[in-house]
Order: sequence, then structure tokens, then C-alpha cells
Amino acid sequence: MDIAEQIKLFIEPNSVALIGVSNNTDERSLSILPKMLDFGFSGKIYVINRHSKEILGIRAYPDLKSVPGSIDLAVVSTAPFSAPDIVRECVDVGVKAIIITSQGFADADAEGVRLQQEIVRIAKKGGARIIGSNTLGVVNHSNRFNTSFATMHRGEEKTFISFVMQSGTFSQGISHSTLVWKGFDLGNTCDVVFADVLEYLEDDPDTKLIALHIEGIENGSRFLKVAHRVARKKPILALKTGISERGARAAASHTGSMVGRDEVYEAAFKQAGIIRVRDVDELEDVMKALLYLPPMRGRRVAMATVTGAAGVIASDACESSGLEMATLSERVKRKFAELSPDWLFVGNPMDILPACFLHGYQETYRTCIKILLEDENVDCVICFVHAIEPGKGEVLDESNIIKELATDYDKPIIPWVYWGLYTQEQKAKLERTKRIVVYPTIERAIRALAAQRKYLEFRESCTEPL
Amino acid sequence: MDIAEQIKLFIEPNSVALIGVSNNTDERSLSILPKMLDFGFSGKIYVINRHSKEILGIRAYPDLKSVPGSIDLAVVSTAPFSAPDIVRECVDVGVKAIIITSQGFADADAEGVRLQQEIVRIAKKGGARIIGSNTLGVVNHSNRFNTSFATMHRGEEKTFISFVMQSGTFSQGISHSTLVWKGFDLGNTCDVVFADVLEYLEDDPDTKLIALHIEGIENGSRFLKVAHRVARKKPILALKTGISERGARAAASHTGSMVGRDEVYEAAFKQAGIIRVRDVDELEDVMKALLYLPPMRGRRVAMATVTGAAGVIASDACESSGLEMATLSERVKRKFAELSPDWLFVGNPMDILPACFLHGYQETYRTCIKILLEDENVDCVICFVHAIEPGKGEVLDESNIIKELATDYDKPIIPWVYWGLYTQEQKAKLERTKRIVVYPTIERAIRALAAQRKYLEFRESCTEPL
Repeated sequence: MDIAEQIKLFIEPNSVALIGVSNNTDERSLSILPKMLDFGFSGKIYVINRHSKEILGIRAYPDLKSVPGSIDLAVVSTAPFSAPDIVRECVDVGVKAIIITSQGFADADAEGVRLQQEIVRIAKKGGARIIGSNTLGVVNHSNRFNTSFATMHRGEEKTFISFVMQSGTFSQGISHSTLVWKGFDLGNTCDVVFADVLEYLEDDPDTKLIALHIEGIENGSRFLKVAHRVARKKPILALKTGISERGARAAASHTGSMVGRDEVYEAAFKQAGIIRVRDVDELEDVMKALLYLPPMRGRRVAMATVTGAAGVIASDACESSGLEMATLSERVKRKFAELSPDWLFVGNPMDILPACFLHGYQETYRTCIKILLEDENVDCVICFVHAIEPGKGEVLDESNIIKELATDYDKPIIPWVYWGLYTQEQKAKLERTKRIVVYPTIERAIRALAAQRKYLEFRESCTEPL
Repeated sequence: MDIAEQIKLFIEPNSVALIGVSNNTDERSLSILPKMLDFGFSGKIYVINRHSKEILGIRAYPDLKSVPGSIDLAVVSTAPFSAPDIVRECVDVGVKAIIITSQGFADADAEGVRLQQEIVRIAKKGGARIIGSNTLGVVNHSNRFNTSFATMHRGEEKTFISFVMQSGTFSQGISHSTLVWKGFDLGNTCDVVFADVLEYLEDDPDTKLIALHIEGIENGSRFLKVAHRVARKKPILALKTGISERGARAAASHTGSMVGRDEVYEAAFKQAGIIRVRDVDELEDVMKALLYLPPMRGRRVAMATVTGAAGVIASDACESSGLEMATLSERVKRKFAELSPDWLFVGNPMDILPACFLHGYQETYRTCIKILLEDENVDCVICFVHAIEPGKGEVLDESNIIKELATDYDKPIIPWVYWGLYTQEQKAKLERTKRIVVYPTIERAIRALAAQRKYLEFRESCTEPL
């Protein structure tokens, strides 16, 4: 069985055995079984419990060897000391994929480290792989499979985002993590590591973008080799935490990770074509830029604004993100000068307000954005949008114009809603066109665009054929 | 008349003359008069217009000298070439405060620069001060006075925040800028500069916090002297833009500002005790930390979490912001160890989940936060809060506990709602206690706390009596 096939057992199993399921299944029990049933998994579930005949209508078996069918995946939630015997039992009945959810291994003390080494040794000998320990396991919205003890919402719209992490909270612990379609919490990464999951995601048709939450990586060279290969097909984003000295210590007690020096990660990510993000906000922003926006074919940003202050902020943000403010072509400047009063400085950022005063708001707004989009010196347009209250301000509502242009042109058009104070209605209206993302600030929009461009440049730099 | 008194005329006038008011007052006209009336100003308004007897029920006068009463403030919205004559007329009738709203001065061309110098010369000779040009002017929610052509909401709850800026859009151009109570848009800062307004705000009872949006400052030494004095009484935040080369050029064409080298600003802000913020998000975050949270008496942060990943992120954020993760006292560690299973690493960040599993969620949660708050080694507690759906999850709703503790203890308690995915209802419920601020991410919470602490350290370092 190759690695991809074996990892697939974890997230697309036909049958799963739950070991260590409590008889107590009420809402406070934090039991996996009711959550798995609620989530809608339609594969076979075997419950292993010596003291019950059935739990929640699912027949219970006293041990794995009493189970009549084959078992793709075992999910183990027992005390750490019992783990070696259970893993041995799994291996004996031919289980090839095991999730160990419990805490108390390398995240805890020396005895935990020893137990973790022992279960890995037993699994390896038997050809099984282990995810965990100290994990919420996996979630897969395609087949409605979920191993978390926390209540989760079912995703309705396929996002094509897969998330591999060292904390289930990113995709599992919350009921609102609607962006993640497939999630792998690797916890202590005692056996299955990031590179293994990347091998599976490489050709997974449900995955168009891969996000990583990394505390530490041990076999760096294999990770880089695999990541570099996969990144050429699908963008990989990484949120690396445990950067500070204290953060590194916290990571050691969280997942037992050796975090290593930050500069090493920085260089490695760059070499592998992995887009590094610095916080959770940026992670979400960049995901959206990569999935929804048309590609930026160069680094040149144009801005249409009615406030000079915002143009200054955009210029600063471009420089600090590695983008640049476009130098507009002479043709576009002439066209814009014709619309504007004589005294106006004609350039980028483009102050469209005086022109709008002279010739009427909506039409002038449309004309200005269009000429910017048509400029061959411009790769992306950020355009001012009024913050509109629901049911008000028809005259100043630019949404329809932007939606129309986003369909007509193959460059990113980013509506910047006045200091982020858009109404939720307005954001929803704009984002109904899949090629538009509304960012809360200019700085965040530009940071996300820069990451998209960086990824495209990595792809362009890969000269060998895929 | 001292400076503070003269600046007061701009924002608390008893009478105002509007020069250059159009007959056209419909919604698209962008005329100041209807907006000023809507906003609820109850002082005297004189309209100067040669061609009308009245506009919107307000009697019009052909020129300033026909006005029967005294005029505290003149607001001038005419073409630049006419400005010198108008300023001369203002001075002749004894006006001491003039707002020039029009664009086309130092923000435009050489002729604009010349005109700007001329009006300043005329005003100075006549003892008048000018705000602008190129400005939306002022807004004051106390007396419902507003000189913007944009529709604005009236603020209902006094925020005690005054904003001095080089773009009216921060406080004037939007209808949602509910945080700003008094706003001064200095535009091109041709005459009235930041230091002048600070002199007024220093003893203004409506102002507890001052925010600045700065593109460039010319007389740096006076600014620093005044700012240092004022900052000892009231926090001053500064968003400095025009940092990049391109941003500096954009600032020159926006407000004619010479922006200068960023390192100079950085050092100067530090010396004056001004808290520098890097973007609009941070500005809002820090305002709230300074106004609503109890003071952090040291730099030591404790965190109660149910996810190790968040603890790692908090540790990183503390280090990069200049705070530190607290080393818990032995007493607190012992107490926490008693609640937790043996294998758990006992320290900060504190993983409270295993203890909650053993002893019941709500009570254990309350106990853990309390012992952290009572630790003399801890200056602030960040505590995990579940993202609750409206009407669901009573068991896991920590809001009431946090609200109670925020009232009982005089240290900041920051609820961190699982990856920012709080419902708006939950945020509103938590923030009903004025001493609680819900930040969207851990990083933003810590950055804001660090700014608060930095300000308090500046105040502590000022040894001379106020």
C-alpha cells in the first residue's frame, strides 16, 4: 500500500472501530460516537466496549477480534498506559490506520514519551500508521466523517481547502470553521507527519489549496522535497507557530515538538514554494485570494480612491508587502486628466472624486475603474466603495458596477469599503460574485494579493515540467 | 486669545458663516448646509450667497459685512483663486477662525502653493487662524456641529475620543465612525497644525484619549514639546502614514506634506510618549484597551486555554509585542496541579481542559481564571471562550463567569473567542460590561495590551509632577 492510499484510510474509511467509547453519551460526555452519528457518516461503525451490548443503537463488541468485518480505521480514546496493548490488537486484526486521540504522551512526561515510542514501534512492525496522539483526528465534509468529540457543523459548499495541523481546534473544535473541507489534526505527529498527508493531498480531487499549522517539523528534508513537488500543483500556506523562545517551550508541552530556529523555517518555506502567513487573519485572507481572485500577472497595483489618505496607506502597504504602485500609461493618464479639473495631480493612486463631482458619480466611477483595468501597466485595481447602510444611498452604491467589471475583466478587482465599515449586507452582496473578496482593511487586501503573486511567481520559476 | 481658546472657536462655535453655499441642496449636491442642519447644530448659521434671499429656510446675506451678529467661525468652500479676498473679508469683520474646505492649494500645483501662502499671511496679520485647506473640517458630537458635506450619524454615547487627522474620512466621511466624538481634519495644515489642536484638547473635558492620523509634521520640536506635556495627562495614539517612498509621494499630492524619514518619527513618538499604531485595526484595538480595560500593572500575561496551539500563538505574540508570559507563583501551580491529571504540564499557558473534564466545566473554568487573577505574578489574563451559537450551548457559555470576574478584579480579563469566530450576539453580551473588550484574534489582543502597558510605562517614567 503506498502512502497516499494509507492516509486515505484515515479520512475516507469504509469502516471505523471506536475503542474507549463511554456508555455515557449525553451532551457533556464529550463522547465521539454521538458526534460521529450526528455528522452523518454512512460507513460502518464498530463500537468496542466490554460492558455494553449496544450504545446509541450501535452494537458493541468486547474486542477487535470479535468484529465480523474488516476495519479500515481504529480511533483509540483510552488512557495512555493501555495504548500499547490496543495498538497490538489493531495490528493483529489487520488495521492499517489508527488515530490515538488521548493526551498524556510526548506532550506530557518521560513515561509518555516512552509509551509513544512503543506504540509507533508496534504499529510500524505491523504495517499500520498512527495519527496523534493528542488529537481530535480528522474531519471530511465529503463523506461526512468526523472523529472529534466536539459538535461540528456540516459544510454545505465544497471549499476545496484541506487543513493539516497540530491542533484540531483549527478545523474541528469549532462549529464555524466553514472554510475547511478536509482536516487532519496530527497532534504530537508521533508517526504520520506533514509529508505523509501532503502525499495524499497531492492528487486528491477535493483539494485545491492546502493550509498547514506547524509547531515543529523533524524530518525537514523529506518535508521540503514533498512540499516542493505538491506546491507546484496546489498552493500550500503555512502558519508556523512556536517562533519565540517561550512559544517554543509552549509547543514542547503542547505537542512535544522541537520547533527549531525560525530563520531555518523561513528559508525552507521559501525554497519549497510554501506561502508563509503570520496569523490566523492572514491565513484566511490569503486562502481567499488564491481561491477566488483572478491571478495577478505582475506586481503592479492601481488604486481608485476618493480619499488621498487611503492612497497613502495603500502605497505604504504595497512597499512593505513587495508589491508596487503601478505607473499608469500615458494614454490612461490623458484620459483621466480629461475628466478631472486642471489642478488635480493625475497619477496613481487616482483621486476620482473631483471627476465624479464634474460628471456624475456612477458613470464616472465606472469609467475610471475601467480605464485602470485596461491599462497594460496595471495588474490589479483596488477601488474605493462607500459604506452603505441597508436600504440607503442608492446613488453612492458601487456594488453593481464592481460585480459587472469583475466578470468582464481577468484582473483582481478589490473593493475597499471605507475604513472597513461595510455592512454585512454590502459584503454579502459584493461577494455573491465569486471573483470578489471584501477585505476589512487596505493593508490586509494588499498583503493577501502579495501572497497570491508570490505563489504565482514560485510557479513561474519552476522550469521543469510537472 | 490663547491658542486653546481660538481652536475652541472651530469646534464649539456659537455662530458660523458658510461662504460658497450652493443654491442646490439636494442629496447629490454635497452641500454642507443641509448636512449641518440635519446633524442638529443649534447655534446661529449665516449663509453668504449673492444670488439668494434664503436657502433651506436660512436667510442669506450677500457678504460678511451684512451679517448682523458676530461670527465665531467661517467655513469657506469656494474656488481657490477667490480665497485671498474672502479671507481678507473675514479678517475685516473680526472672524478669528476660518475653515477652507476646497482642494487645489498645496495639494495641487505651484499656483496653489502661492495662494495658500497668501491666505495664511492675510489671516496671520488679522489674528485669524485657518484650518485646511483641503478638508472636511470638524465634527463635534457634543454640540452636534459638523462641517462635512457627507451625511453623518449623530453619536449617542460619548466616547471621549478626539481624532486629529489629515483626512476627514477618518471621522467625517463615514456614517459609522461611532468611536470619534470630536474630529479635526487639518487637511493641508496650512496654518493650524497638530500642536495647536493638542493645546485645546489638553484640558478639554470631552477628551480622554487623542488619536492622530499624520502624513507629515513640519515644526517637529514644538509638536514634541506639546505632545509630551499632553501625553502625560491623556494617551495620544498616532497612525503615521506616508512611510514608503511611494507613500511619501502620494502624501505630497494629497496634503502637500513633507513626510520626512520614518526613523525620525519613530524616535520622536517614543520620546514624546506617543503610542504608535501601524494600521487602522490596531488604532481601534488600542483605543479600546486604553479606554475600557483596567490598567496592566506589569508586562506579565497569563493564559487559560483548552488548546495548546493557542497558547503557543499567545507566547509568540507576547514576545513580539514586548510583553511576557507570566511565571506562575508556586501556590497557583500547586492549586492547579491538584485539579489536573498527573501527566499534565502545569504552567502558563494553562491547559484547563483536562481539569474541566475531571471536575465539571463551568466551576473548574471559574476556579482556574480566579486563581490566575489572584496570582501576584500575573498582570492580565487571557481566557479561552467557546464560540457559541445563538440559543445554544449553555453548558459551554463562559460569558457570565467572565463578566462577573471582570467586575470583581482590577486586572484586564480578555476573552479570546475560539479563532475569532464569535457570534455578534456573544460579543455584544460580553462587551455589555464596559471593562471587557473582545478582540478578533489573540495576536490583536496582545498587541493592544502591549500598547496600553507601554503608555502606562511612559506615564510612570515621567517623574516631574504634572
